[in-house]
Amino acid sequence: MTGEKSKAAIFSEVGKALEIREFNLPDKIEKGAALCKVTMSTICGSDLHTINGRRNEPLPLILGHEIIGTIVALGEGLEYDGLGNKLAIGDRVTWTIMASCGNCYYCRNGLPQKCEKLAKYGHTCSTQPPHLTGGYAEYIYLFSGTVIYKIPESISDEIATPANCALSTSINAVETIGLQEGETVLIQGAGLLGLNLVALAVEAGAKKVFITDVMQSRLDLAKRFGAHVCLNLKDLSPDEVVSQIRAHTGGYGADVAIEVCGVSKVVPQAVQALRIGGRYLVAGLVTPGSNLDIDGNQLTRKYLTVKGIHNYHPKHLGMALKFLEKYSGKYPFGELVGKVFPLSQINEAIKEASSGEFVRVGVRT
Amino acid sequence: MTGEKSKAAIFSEVGKALEIREFNLPDKIEKGAALCKVTMSTICGSDLHTINGRRNEPLPLILGHEIIGTIVALGEGLEYDGLGNKLAIGDRVTWTIMASCGNCYYCRNGLPQKCEKLAKYGHTCSTQPPHLTGGYAEYIYLFSGTVIYKIPESISDEIATPANCALSTSINAVETIGLQEGETVLIQGAGLLGLNLVALAVEAGAKKVFITDVMQSRLDLAKRFGAHVCLNLKDLSPDEVVSQIRAHTGGYGADVAIEVCGVSKVVPQAVQALRIGGRYLVAGLVTPGSNLDIDGNQLTRKYLTVKGIHNYHPKHLGMALKFLEKYSGKYPFGELVGKVFPLSQINEAIKEASSGEFVRVGVRT
Repeated sequence: MTGEKSKAAIFSEVGKALEIREFNLPDKIEKGAALCKVTMSTICGSDLHTINGRRNEPLPLILGHEIIGTIVALGEGLEYDGLGNKLAIGDRVTWTIMASCGNCYYCRNGLPQKCEKLAKYGHTCSTQPPHLTGGYAEYIYLFSGTVIYKIPESISDEIATPANCALSTSINAVETIGLQEGETVLIQGAGLLGLNLVALAVEAGAKKVFITDVMQSRLDLAKRFGAHVCLNLKDLSPDEVVSQIRAHTGGYGADVAIEVCGVSKVVPQAVQALRIGGRYLVAGLVTPGSNLDIDGNQLTRKYLTVKGIHNYHPKHLGMALKFLEKYSGKYPFGELVGKVFPLSQINEAIKEASSGEFVRVGVRT
Repeated sequence: MTGEKSKAAIFSEVGKALEIREFNLPDKIEKGAALCKVTMSTICGSDLHTINGRRNEPLPLILGHEIIGTIVALGEGLEYDGLGNKLAIGDRVTWTIMASCGNCYYCRNGLPQKCEKLAKYGHTCSTQPPHLTGGYAEYIYLFSGTVIYKIPESISDEIATPANCALSTSINAVETIGLQEGETVLIQGAGLLGLNLVALAVEAGAKKVFITDVMQSRLDLAKRFGAHVCLNLKDLSPDEVVSQIRAHTGGYGADVAIEVCGVSKVVPQAVQALRIGGRYLVAGLVTPGSNLDIDGNQLTRKYLTVKGIHNYHPKHLGMALKFLEKYSGKYPFGELVGKVFPLSQINEAIKEASSGEFVRVGVRT
């Protein structure tokens, strides 16, 4: 590939538009690594956090971590995907948001997503080779320690692209908090994670799924994903939300609550709405200074469990693809990417994503 | 028992000394209930919370819930203790801090300590019959739904008395947070729960036990209970505490932290001192308004688990007695009750307990 080049959108400063630049494709694919041609990326809420300066990343960088592509080159020893399927050049694939070393304390103790040598796509400075480490580009270099998955043919590009962030994290959330058949669950936030969670909870056999948001259009979509009770926080006071949930749960409160809205002020509402012995999974509070307003007296007397997660284990991406293969036709997954822009219009795409009109905006190269 | 009377110390108002009054013993012992002569009670920190108005209980009441006694009368159908031993009049016993109905949602779902018809000793208004529902009295009436345990002969009164509150709660803490052999644990507070936790953690095979407090005498006692690293919060800044714990854990932080000091400002210290994937058990924050100062961004990125508990399941009292039978000679459990007063001197006993000089002060009738 010597001499070939890849266009990429560079984010170098908060408040400054992204610029398209060209990078040389790497001369050599390291052992266990791969090179992919990017088919599509979607703009995640956390990309917008970085663009708007709500959190710091090493700049300049190529944003975008919800990505699919086709394999252009495979490094030595990389033969199988995460489900044991043989990999080949030309395969349509997705991959874990991160590359892990496989050797450190966290890799050996079930948390490779917290690897001590972690590299994350869309989060890595682009000044050093291999440069191409984000999705808003024509090509991407996959480090050794990335788990790749072939995408089943029945899953469209638009449905497959956000799976390696939103859906995988949602599956991690459901697994970590141990949602059981017959339980009631409050989902806080009807963004992509929240919508995914509704479908996951329904298919897990949840008896009642409550969802809160401030945008009626998203709550309407949540209804179509199977939510039983949609509560608009613009119309209801926190006490009214809690009393509606209690009314639907025999006065006890919900068994489980999951925060995926990124707004810490909803935390006391979940604490109130949970039953004694309830479990609360926090996944959306990833910007610094999100103080959890929890009364310790409530935590103890209500026997609550509060858990945080961030990203996911590679197996969750495999589970995400299997879930989509089975259920992507049953729920309106196909409507989640509302508009797709070419890479050359990346700034228009970001503007559209920031408006919040669509659950996801895509970038196609 | 018609005509017989029992002295009892009545707490009727914050700021007012307790008064000794007499109550008639009940004419009849209900089905499943029992009457005991109190041998000894100890003054728990939560009794002092009530006396000092830091929390509200229905007044007037007879305080005292860490109690042992001998059976005077057994109601119909009450034949066995919690470990299956036959009960008889004259048996030296202790019992659960609470009586549960056995029939409600929480009783049927593993949380009888949160029974919808819960009655708690030392927490129940004394105006209604059977009146005698607290430990600072000559007799106590045990409601149906209380789980009684015979006390092994090898355990002294002083060691057995606090078992049905402090040690049982400590065992619940260790079980709920799932402390594993080889793990490192930070215990926040070297009161009776903290000291019990040190011995429990050591016997569970903890690799390193850290304990923090502000009283050097209690930390010295913690050392004798087996704590490896005792950290005085009067001498060390929060950052110094965290860096000491990191230094002893290969830079990672502790696997588990347990709060049993009742002071919410120590919470951020535990969050900092825990490793990624760490688990935090909060047991001491039982007064209203104990805000947990946890950053949601830390909770998610560190993959933390935070759990609250309050009191314990009846089985934990059985486990407490077995633990004491095995280990009460190995650790200085015999030194925990520092001074014992007769019931007639209950106010002097409370004053002594409030000074904090002794881990526990006893009341003998």
